[in-house]
Amino acid sequence: MRGFKGIFLLSVGLFLNINSVFAQLKIEQWNRFELKLPNNSDKNSFSDNLLSATFTHKDTSITVSGFYDGNNQYIVRFMPDKTGIWKYSTKSAFTPLNNKKGEFECIKASANNHGIVRVSQTYHFKYADSTAYFPLGTTAYAWTHMADDVQEQTLKSLQNSGFNKIRMCVFPKNYELVKEEPTIYPYAVKEIKKDAKGNEVKIWDFSQFNPAFFQHLEKRIDDLQALGIEADLIVFHPYDKGRWGFDEMPMEANLNYIKYLVARLASFRNIWWSLANEYDFVKSKTDKDWETLIKAVVKADPYHHLCSIHGSTAKYFNYQMPEITHTSIQDGAPVLNWGGAAIVRSIYPKPIIFDEVGYEGNLKSRWGRYSGEEMNHMVWMGLLGGTYVTHGESYMFKDHRDTIFWAKGGQFKGNSWKRAALARQILSETGPLEMADVSRDFKTATNGKGTYLIYFGKEMLEEWIFDLPHKNASSERPKPGTKYKVDIIDTWDMSITKVNTTFEASEANDYRIADKSNRKIRLPLKPYIALRITQTNPD
Amino acid sequence: MRGFKGIFLLSVGLFLNINSVFAQLKIEQWNRFELKLPNNSDKNSFSDNLLSATFTHKDTSITVSGFYDGNNQYIVRFMPDKTGIWKYSTKSAFTPLNNKKGEFECIKASANNHGIVRVSQTYHFKYADSTAYFPLGTTAYAWTHMADDVQEQTLKSLQNSGFNKIRMCVFPKNYELVKEEPTIYPYAVKEIKKDAKGNEVKIWDFSQFNPAFFQHLEKRIDDLQALGIEADLIVFHPYDKGRWGFDEMPMEANLNYIKYLVARLASFRNIWWSLANEYDFVKSKTDKDWETLIKAVVKADPYHHLCSIHGSTAKYFNYQMPEITHTSIQDGAPVLNWGGAAIVRSIYPKPIIFDEVGYEGNLKSRWGRYSGEEMNHMVWMGLLGGTYVTHGESYMFKDHRDTIFWAKGGQFKGNSWKRAALARQILSETGPLEMADVSRDFKTATNGKGTYLIYFGKEMLEEWIFDLPHKNASSERPKPGTKYKVDIIDTWDMSITKVNTTFEASEANDYRIADKSNRKIRLPLKPYIALRITQTNPD
Repeated sequence: MRGFKGIFLLSVGLFLNINSVFAQLKIEQWNRFELKLPNNSDKNSFSDNLLSATFTHKDTSITVSGFYDGNNQYIVRFMPDKTGIWKYSTKSAFTPLNNKKGEFECIKASANNHGIVRVSQTYHFKYADSTAYFPLGTTAYAWTHMADDVQEQTLKSLQNSGFNKIRMCVFPKNYELVKEEPTIYPYAVKEIKKDAKGNEVKIWDFSQFNPAFFQHLEKRIDDLQALGIEADLIVFHPYDKGRWGFDEMPMEANLNYIKYLVARLASFRNIWWSLANEYDFVKSKTDKDWETLIKAVVKADPYHHLCSIHGSTAKYFNYQMPEITHTSIQDGAPVLNWGGAAIVRSIYPKPIIFDEVGYEGNLKSRWGRYSGEEMNHMVWMGLLGGTYVTHGESYMFKDHRDTIFWAKGGQFKGNSWKRAALARQILSETGPLEMADVSRDFKTATNGKGTYLIYFGKEMLEEWIFDLPHKNASSERPKPGTKYKVDIIDTWDMSITKVNTTFEASEANDYRIADKSNRKIRLPLKPYIALRITQTNPD
Repeated sequence: MRGFKGIFLLSVGLFLNINSVFAQLKIEQWNRFELKLPNNSDKNSFSDNLLSATFTHKDTSITVSGFYDGNNQYIVRFMPDKTGIWKYSTKSAFTPLNNKKGEFECIKASANNHGIVRVSQTYHFKYADSTAYFPLGTTAYAWTHMADDVQEQTLKSLQNSGFNKIRMCVFPKNYELVKEEPTIYPYAVKEIKKDAKGNEVKIWDFSQFNPAFFQHLEKRIDDLQALGIEADLIVFHPYDKGRWGFDEMPMEANLNYIKYLVARLASFRNIWWSLANEYDFVKSKTDKDWETLIKAVVKADPYHHLCSIHGSTAKYFNYQMPEITHTSIQDGAPVLNWGGAAIVRSIYPKPIIFDEVGYEGNLKSRWGRYSGEEMNHMVWMGLLGGTYVTHGESYMFKDHRDTIFWAKGGQFKGNSWKRAALARQILSETGPLEMADVSRDFKTATNGKGTYLIYFGKEMLEEWIFDLPHKNASSERPKPGTKYKVDIIDTWDMSITKVNTTFEASEANDYRIADKSNRKIRLPLKPYIALRITQTNPD
């Protein structure tokens, strides 16, 4: 019966193909299907309700908004998740765009395509194909607004790094050390005025998007996708200061912008929505406004990409809001002191990302002058607490035209970026971590399956006597006789050294487990050392 | 004109008095007005909707529920806040209780009556008369269920202490070290069954409250009020384990219990509602149930007393819930490491109380064996972060019949309780604190008005070179030439030593302010030292 059914289904497939005029279009899961629809009309506009399409796969039906791409062309984009035949049908007030029907076959994702990133096990992430995703991002706010060669250099830098996420803004940035005028803008210019000082000020037509601006952004997001990097896209930011005014558009324009942006970009599988950077510095918007804008993004996005918002130092948005999938915190405090990161994780039942804890660099401002060691240390302090820390770099060797990676991208000049791959490697080997004995032991994390990670930070030790918490988070506690092997990880010198000793757990004594023979190991008397302690029995 | 109007108002007052048959009843603001209404009927019951009363004062109108107090008597209680004449009128399905009218005069509160405690300046508290309230509480969960002499001893202990809040349960406690059977229960017994072991098990009639139980609880809450102590009343708790079953009553019984409890107790000005202790250990209730119960309390309480809920270690309820006025956290982590308390405060826009961080004691369990020094240290670590920490003591010198203060009250046997008065004194002198330079300087708090508090914890220093953060929270930064005096506070030895040096702030240099002549002071090379640095000019 099973064999017969299979053959029957196959022949249906063949039947459909035979009846198609063109060869069946094949789209990988989580890749982008794109339908281009020309429409010669003087009524073409960027209004958000002119075109939609419903995609159907067996019992699943997803409706997406199309968008006007200029030049008398509308586009509908769709990201299929399930393999098999997807059929679509369009709706539009324009007859040539209405009731367009078609189908494509969604095929299994290829090896490097793991799909959209989702929350997993409350505090962590995985790709749609169940591959674990451990975010280790960096930041280059305005990299897509720099000169082309700088953008290409940024991509090369990222390719050579271990980063798998980047924080980047849609709008250009006007800040003390970032003054570059973009060559392309998101809106058409309605009028050019002169301000009191005689400078030209562009007055935008918020009803007229500039498709070329978004096409460029899309190209860069696809470039990142090819490198396996998630684009944590910052929808609004305060770094404008009257220069372009994108931080103080009317609320209606904000909402139209969101609808247009999401219609264009939701089908990019590596998109995350970050509603704002330093939202509390955007003077024109209240917390209530941000809630409205967050809800607008989530409502417009049929795939529910990850979504968060980022504040200034120690400014915590109400991350309990159900539409927010994870935190995106600016605060060094939780990773500068023991136990801090885990406190934040105890509070929010969501993945904790500290997206700004400081930058390795040489700036005058204290946020931009951490050593590479300190930057890397903060990454590990977060990791130990079962949380994730974003890297950042802000070296400037010449003047403000220098490409400070933090905003402009370009070349990495520091040292901590080279350590990202090791942190990700360790995480991919241990799996998601959490504190083993939260509130009591601030240096020991566990994967709940027999592996512990101890991180000593700046403490320099010449030996470690086997000593684990008996508590193993919410997992079963180790039994006497459990055997362990140990690796010494030098998080700064990037070495993993196997120790040739097998340890054996004794009976728990007053909340701790010692080795039966009080075995100990030599440590290199250096800072930034971690131990990975792995259960070896039962095999 | 003013004089004339005053006389006119006075004569209206006299006129009303002359027309009353009895002398006008006078009730202080925030004291309790009580109306006793007899009703001989075989239909008398504890049903919550049989009696209500509306109290009116000019434009203010407040409706409260009455309650059945047994013995054919109903009671209505009311806590007036505004001075002047309050009139009331009752509503009841029982004719003898219906449409009872009357009035009383609310007079100005006397010296020791500051009114109900409210949230102030987002993170702090004050009494209704605007007197600051800095919570420094202790814990004696089941003290009202002990023998009378122990209860009297508990009150004496509290009177001699500096505590101004106590966490205490309505229901009796059944726990490893607390096995006392109460002499009185909240419900009438419907039936006595024998369990498998032949032990008697009481089956309660949840429709029949036992007024004597609540009268006793009320007497004790009034006893606390006389001592200036807030009763942080724990409505539910998990320490029952099938003995009485008060932790697993049906939801309808829970809601009726809340209505009855609140009708009886909301007029007690020193009541705080704590929906539960270790709510997550109550197996019969979900987070959703707790939300329902919290809302039920807040809905029933016309005065909106402070309201929170308390979890097990590092279990943070969603304290963002609008009905929750402050946090009531069990977690040592935020006060065992620098910067932790302030992280929690950055997250919740509410007063942060750490209601359980550990206990000074000699128990085998690690939660109950901190030294007095450590307990006091945790109080100061919290205070430094602009938060509040609750004390607890758990010494047992004989066996489980010993009065461990944590649950049973009795005599304090430790040393940290003696330090509560000093912490409150310092707070009352500085006013509310917050970190001066959050995320950067983890040892310096400010009152935003020129006073700083630096706490060194376990660091033992022999000198301190004047050095303050230039940042002064969200307040104005100190100007060069600002003069300061310094007190050395030994938080353990309870001394405040004035330093005979006047310091003068220099220009800020890289985020910090030094003294113009680099003045420094000698410190006693002891742990638990704090410095209070107070601006002296302009006077």
